[in-house]
Amino acid sequence: MQEILQRIVDRTPGAQGAILMGFDGIPVLQAEAPSPSVDIEAVAMEFSFRFIELVKAAQALELGSIHDVTIKTDRGVVITRVLTEDYFVCLFVDDPVYLGKGRYVLRVESVGLAQQL
Amino acid sequence: MQEILQRIVDRTPGAQGAILMGFDGIPVLQAEAPSPSVDIEAVAMEFSFRFIELVKAAQALELGSIHDVTIKTDRGVVITRVLTEDYFVCLFVDDPVYLGKGRYVLRVESVGLAQQL
Repeated sequence: MQEILQRIVDRTPGAQGAILMGFDGIPVLQAEAPSPSVDIEAVAMEFSFRFIELVKAAQALELGSIHDVTIKTDRGVVITRVLTEDYFVCLFVDDPVYLGKGRYVLRVESVGLAQQL
Repeated sequence: MQEILQRIVDRTPGAQGAILMGFDGIPVLQAEAPSPSVDIEAVAMEFSFRFIELVKAAQALELGSIHDVTIKTDRGVVITRVLTEDYFVCLFVDDPVYLGKGRYVLRVESVGLAQQL
């Protein structure tokens, strides 16, 4: 799984880090760019509890499960993909130009991550 | 502004509705497809308080302001764009294929909406 996370970072231009985390806010594994501009663990922890709230909102609205959440900020894009009921993977890309590429890489590599959970 | 919201719905394939809403959860104006598959007002209200939490998380992480949030669910995609400190616009598209188109239309039309707030 560590290799997959590293591949997500390496294959996505502008990627600062990728992390596998539980919805309980506990980090499992992570990979980072050589000199990351953000602390990917802090980002994922800060957002994890908020993601649970979004999942609950979607259920309340009968929209079904949430597949992914993308948040565009001044400093970059947080791309999150739900893997199982308990885990998600989060990627931070510092240039919104690579949002599409990041979402694609995350979708493709998520299959391998989910299989090992 | 009503015309702009209607144009957002009309220009986006699969769009079920678009709504202008305050972060306090109070709807301002909305436009819907002829037979919408979701209640856009309910969707935006349910998510509005969660969006404030995301905004706070981004500030805590020094990521700056949030520009937009995209949530992909089983039944469709919720595309949200922050207009001002107090208002956001939310679009629901029932087919994820049109996510890119929806985000584009929302970005272009948001300029006109923000100018009138």
